[in-house]
Amino acid sequence: MTSLHRGKQSMIFPNRPVVTAWASVVGKKEGEGPLGKRFDLVVPDGKFGEKTWEQAETHFQQAAMELLLEKAGEEIPAPELVFSGDLLNQCVGSSYALRGSGLPALGLYGACSTMAEGLLLAGVAVNAGYVQQAAALSSSHFAAAERQYRFPLAYGGQRTPTAQWTVTGAGAILASAEGDGPVLTGATVGTVEDKGITDANNMGAAMAWAAYRTIRANLEDLSRSPEDYDQIVTGDLGSLGSNMVREFFEKDGIRLGNRYTDCGVLIYDPEAQDVHCGGSGAGCSASVLAARLLPGLASGEWKRILFCGTGALLSPTTVQQKRSIPAICHAVAIES
Amino acid sequence: MTSLHRGKQSMIFPNRPVVTAWASVVGKKEGEGPLGKRFDLVVPDGKFGEKTWEQAETHFQQAAMELLLEKAGEEIPAPELVFSGDLLNQCVGSSYALRGSGLPALGLYGACSTMAEGLLLAGVAVNAGYVQQAAALSSSHFAAAERQYRFPLAYGGQRTPTAQWTVTGAGAILASAEGDGPVLTGATVGTVEDKGITDANNMGAAMAWAAYRTIRANLEDLSRSPEDYDQIVTGDLGSLGSNMVREFFEKDGIRLGNRYTDCGVLIYDPEAQDVHCGGSGAGCSASVLAARLLPGLASGEWKRILFCGTGALLSPTTVQQKRSIPAICHAVAIES
Repeated sequence: MTSLHRGKQSMIFPNRPVVTAWASVVGKKEGEGPLGKRFDLVVPDGKFGEKTWEQAETHFQQAAMELLLEKAGEEIPAPELVFSGDLLNQCVGSSYALRGSGLPALGLYGACSTMAEGLLLAGVAVNAGYVQQAAALSSSHFAAAERQYRFPLAYGGQRTPTAQWTVTGAGAILASAEGDGPVLTGATVGTVEDKGITDANNMGAAMAWAAYRTIRANLEDLSRSPEDYDQIVTGDLGSLGSNMVREFFEKDGIRLGNRYTDCGVLIYDPEAQDVHCGGSGAGCSASVLAARLLPGLASGEWKRILFCGTGALLSPTTVQQKRSIPAICHAVAIES
Repeated sequence: MTSLHRGKQSMIFPNRPVVTAWASVVGKKEGEGPLGKRFDLVVPDGKFGEKTWEQAETHFQQAAMELLLEKAGEEIPAPELVFSGDLLNQCVGSSYALRGSGLPALGLYGACSTMAEGLLLAGVAVNAGYVQQAAALSSSHFAAAERQYRFPLAYGGQRTPTAQWTVTGAGAILASAEGDGPVLTGATVGTVEDKGITDANNMGAAMAWAAYRTIRANLEDLSRSPEDYDQIVTGDLGSLGSNMVREFFEKDGIRLGNRYTDCGVLIYDPEAQDVHCGGSGAGCSASVLAARLLPGLASGEWKRILFCGTGALLSPTTVQQKRSIPAICHAVAIES
């Protein structure tokens, strides 16, 4: 293992944990988007046969986990550790999803950065030999999130131009000590940043600085330049936030160009789907990682990507109390 | 490193990360309890000079972290990783506490098991050599928790006999690759258990089975008996839940006796303080660990303890939806 060095935020994984399986399950709107055919399962019923949106979110996670284990195949045993989280109060989507599974579970809270945080910790656990198999799992649900963070859907509130659309869906990833697939080669742990944004409908702006800081830290710690990555993908800043990241780098004299994109930009069609600034939610970067990024590495389309999960660490209470929105970004380097 | 073996939940830390510093900061009521003089700081003002209970909770965490770094002394550098969490929606107590600190941070959600989860992950990171110093940090606040989980204080609701009292306070622990102090020698990751309890005022009962399962897993995985620990301490089942744990073990023919106790039982005086079943909250086991358990190991009073953080994974929404309460317990073995 290479340690985090004093004043640095990055670690490398010399034992190269292998991403042996991945799965994504999304809702109807996500299925109608540009990545529609790439998801493993599109569920037209937003309640997924359940009574409540919250139970539906749990069902999305369970379906992603079941598909993950199915795709991993019988040769790969069940994970010895699962890192999971979601956006619901007290992360109940994840807790109910793993209830009774018998799988050792560590709960995370990283808002929309949860999949990156889980993948990072799965890499930590597998690279160090604590486990042979570790899974990362996260989800979000549009209706559950709107009710919790903003307004009940029945209220018919108008969305602001900077709003993002919470993805209904879940993603699950399996990191293994051995096997075939893309490999986790390093990670950068984020710091909690706050640029004073108080508008809960402008989370992209709140998160952009954290994303910039973590990507910079990754490049500096590992003596890399953006060209060392075929893709640098944040998730989920949306169009406004991702443009801010481009601008921060331009001030450093760095043009990210096509090398840079964002899961919230990739998941919906800005012309055909009325999503304003793009997708968000802990299920967004999780499902895009599983449906688009890992397959892109597996097929050889890219050799090395930096997957940067971004989280806006607000709550409805802090919004009512008019506090600014802290944000965090964790990055994981994945290679084919 | 010794890996988690198939079907097992425990790992050992052969490099024995050292707990080089610990700090606790609590409120007035906790200061008046049996451990009152053992806390590093008792803050009589429940708002800690802040405008809101939520900001006060952040202040408790910050004060615990500052005290931790002060007690660690100048020779020990700042942690390269902080694992933190709390009970507030979206864990905002922790996010604001670490905002602007520049410390790489990974957010956890484990309800009242958060300190055990954080200590476990700090042990994982230090034992494997990823970092030289890792901190675990968690908190809770009576007034913020009552408002969020039950009723606003001004409502004057009557507490049920099985209710526990959420601790106002925070604890912070530093695990280091080198130094003097108690050592982390192993840990057991819990599974999400649910015995069908639906009463949010009876969390001890909801968590007792999870605690029993994790303690059993620890003993079986490591071929130990309860006598191998001078103390087995859950946190926070309170009096009712901890008696249930005793009963579960008695059915196995094992009498835990004085060897077993609970942080929720230790923190308040059941006669003099009207707390019903005892203390709870992510700040309870964190502050008791720092104020009572680690000093007991450092002084040689005990040689080996099993610190078992227990979390009730409910939310106000799931209570309203009449769902049963999943629970989890993570255990960390600490030796003098």
